[in-house]
Amino acid sequence: MQETESIRVGICGLGTVGGGTLELLRANRLEISDRLGKEVVVSHVATRTLKPELTQDIATIGTDPLAVASDPNVDILVETIGGCDIAFELIATALAKGKQVVTANKALIAERGNELFVLAEKHRVNLAFESSVGGGIPVIRALREGLAANEIQWLAGIINGTGNFILTEMAEKQREFSEVLKQAQKLGYAEADPAFDVEGIDAAHKLTIMASIVFGIPLQFDKVYMEGISHITPHDISYADELGYCIKHLGIAQRSERGMELRVHPTLLSRSRLLASVNGVGNAVLVNGNRVGSTLYYGPGAGAEATASSVVADIIDIARQQAAGAVEPVCPALGYRNYSNKLPVLTIEDIESEYYLRIPAMDRLGVMARISSVLQSQSINIEAVIQKESSSKNVPIVILTHKVKERNLNQALATLEALEEVTGSITRIRVESFHSGTA
Amino acid sequence: MQETESIRVGICGLGTVGGGTLELLRANRLEISDRLGKEVVVSHVATRTLKPELTQDIATIGTDPLAVASDPNVDILVETIGGCDIAFELIATALAKGKQVVTANKALIAERGNELFVLAEKHRVNLAFESSVGGGIPVIRALREGLAANEIQWLAGIINGTGNFILTEMAEKQREFSEVLKQAQKLGYAEADPAFDVEGIDAAHKLTIMASIVFGIPLQFDKVYMEGISHITPHDISYADELGYCIKHLGIAQRSERGMELRVHPTLLSRSRLLASVNGVGNAVLVNGNRVGSTLYYGPGAGAEATASSVVADIIDIARQQAAGAVEPVCPALGYRNYSNKLPVLTIEDIESEYYLRIPAMDRLGVMARISSVLQSQSINIEAVIQKESSSKNVPIVILTHKVKERNLNQALATLEALEEVTGSITRIRVESFHSGTA
Repeated sequence: MQETESIRVGICGLGTVGGGTLELLRANRLEISDRLGKEVVVSHVATRTLKPELTQDIATIGTDPLAVASDPNVDILVETIGGCDIAFELIATALAKGKQVVTANKALIAERGNELFVLAEKHRVNLAFESSVGGGIPVIRALREGLAANEIQWLAGIINGTGNFILTEMAEKQREFSEVLKQAQKLGYAEADPAFDVEGIDAAHKLTIMASIVFGIPLQFDKVYMEGISHITPHDISYADELGYCIKHLGIAQRSERGMELRVHPTLLSRSRLLASVNGVGNAVLVNGNRVGSTLYYGPGAGAEATASSVVADIIDIARQQAAGAVEPVCPALGYRNYSNKLPVLTIEDIESEYYLRIPAMDRLGVMARISSVLQSQSINIEAVIQKESSSKNVPIVILTHKVKERNLNQALATLEALEEVTGSITRIRVESFHSGTA
Repeated sequence: MQETESIRVGICGLGTVGGGTLELLRANRLEISDRLGKEVVVSHVATRTLKPELTQDIATIGTDPLAVASDPNVDILVETIGGCDIAFELIATALAKGKQVVTANKALIAERGNELFVLAEKHRVNLAFESSVGGGIPVIRALREGLAANEIQWLAGIINGTGNFILTEMAEKQREFSEVLKQAQKLGYAEADPAFDVEGIDAAHKLTIMASIVFGIPLQFDKVYMEGISHITPHDISYADELGYCIKHLGIAQRSERGMELRVHPTLLSRSRLLASVNGVGNAVLVNGNRVGSTLYYGPGAGAEATASSVVADIIDIARQQAAGAVEPVCPALGYRNYSNKLPVLTIEDIESEYYLRIPAMDRLGVMARISSVLQSQSINIEAVIQKESSSKNVPIVILTHKVKERNLNQALATLEALEEVTGSITRIRVESFHSGTA
């Protein structure tokens, strides 16, 4: 790394995050130069659609991102194009040319980060990605540096703001999923194709990244179990509430003796936990380290300004490293130099959990006894039951189970659904019982 | 900085934090060497009381901390002695010899950090202090690096676990301050002389440090307004509850056009805020940046293991900087290179706040009218009133005011206390109304 008079940044892509980054660098120019002792100047912008109102004072403006990667007047390349195609080629090119790179692209890091980090290491440059998880929350730094003294046992995060907004609205106003989703789309929270948010793909990208950092394992997006929130009903939320729980869409990474768990799914969470109070579009990550215990990081998980805050934090960090004379990144991208954790990622059938079950059943004498006996045959113990009087012939039986292996639960559910008394498919939601005080 | 085969640490002081650091380095040895690619070895321990059960495998054990500062086999000196006398001399000596230093000593950093950081800068070494604020929460890193792109508007923290434990117990069990304090002392949370915790000195030390990092101002412990919690009664907690608030002991740093506010005092906080849910010995810091908005950091604010987690994070960070070839600290100690913020620290009379007032008054016709007219004469508007029927002749009148300058409030209170109808001194608690969503 070479020290220069000012830090020259090239921004590729002037969408939400790229535009936000440009604006932030302009708005907080004095604050940033007070911190760095030098100016950060945007010297080159590549944008598909020229936006003259944003780029009057930029020396070079073009449409080709690869030109930014080759520009000798760019010290740090900021990739805010998104997607995995052009962005991959662009970052790979920049790294190979020895350019420092900052990206907000969680899909790219989660799916192709292993290749890119090898390149970055080879050329001894940073590929920084704070903004890829938790928007404006500096959670990557917290996990990789702040908690570096710990063996991390588990983490659980509300890491998709759209999903959390939908569940919060459903809970507060007893509304249906599909209806709230439409509202979220109108408000601009959800994409036109909402699968990314509500099916858990976005959360799985972020979980993949965090899991590698806390466990010292390669990025393994394809091993993450994903389940969305579209099957959650206001009834489930209200039964959960009666039992003292709320329902949150969580990304969970957990270490056990048998292997690592990486999973994204709706989860019953005790209402007394701090994480249960994280509502609306807010994100939060709760982490348990073997020495520090539980810490929690909360803030805005998306939005131009919040995400740009993390992009620029990465720019400042790289500039500080350069000024201190570092000849390679101070911290390895995923925080590890040796990978001695060889534990496999477990399939979802191999995890153990407590479960919430909503069983549609006939209101007939002895039905609860038959259900109990099926559960017992798989050694599944019942912790709580809700069975309401009903005027209709069908009444849901709601059960909380003790901890059981998911494979055994699946067998029990198959047997239950075959019972004459059970009138439809059973809703199953995992219940979390972290040992972490009340965080 | 020189790269070595292993990182050699000297620990001065084997009390709670020093002992915890030694144990952590031993327990998480593999995890740490996986992260660093090299071992962290404790090569020298200086302790007043020899503890053979803890130090069997240490090469050099002695009673003189200054010997650690001069030991060529020590790369990083960890100061866990505490206090401002020996610790100051020790750290100054170590820095002057070009040793990297890690300390958990918030009193020392807050009161004499300005001198020490000059020395550290001169000798181009780190004086790291993550563990001095918020115990195991990596909040210094978050403020100094994670949020570095922002102009910070304000922060508010629950930064003394003992005080928060006492207020939580008082609220949950309607108990008196003095009674809960005794319990906290029995549990080992509070010192035998509890002034440090309950009068706000400890919180003021931590606030001093955070304020310098977020505002780019020198450490100014003597300018912090301090007020403890010993005058809070269960009645106040219960009236606050009726109005929708809880009472927390907060450290607040705020930027306004007229100057900086640095204050530690009990505060009414809307119950709907995430910060209001931080109970018991937990700590949390809520920070508002001009771009990112509000983020929150929660975790254990004290304890051997949590504090050691931050001490060792600093060790790892310094080792990483050395390995990357940095010739000086990557980040300035307080995060700034230029200090262009010349705004003064305001006195408490110059701040503006909303207030909770509990006025002991005679139960007599017209008393509320007289009180209102006094407040109005100082342009103080009333937001809410609680005036209960009572069988006794004296009944407290509880008032929430709109925002007013504290100087004007003081004048109104003096006039009120001189009224015949007011039968004792008025309790006054500041009310916070941060603009930060629900965090």
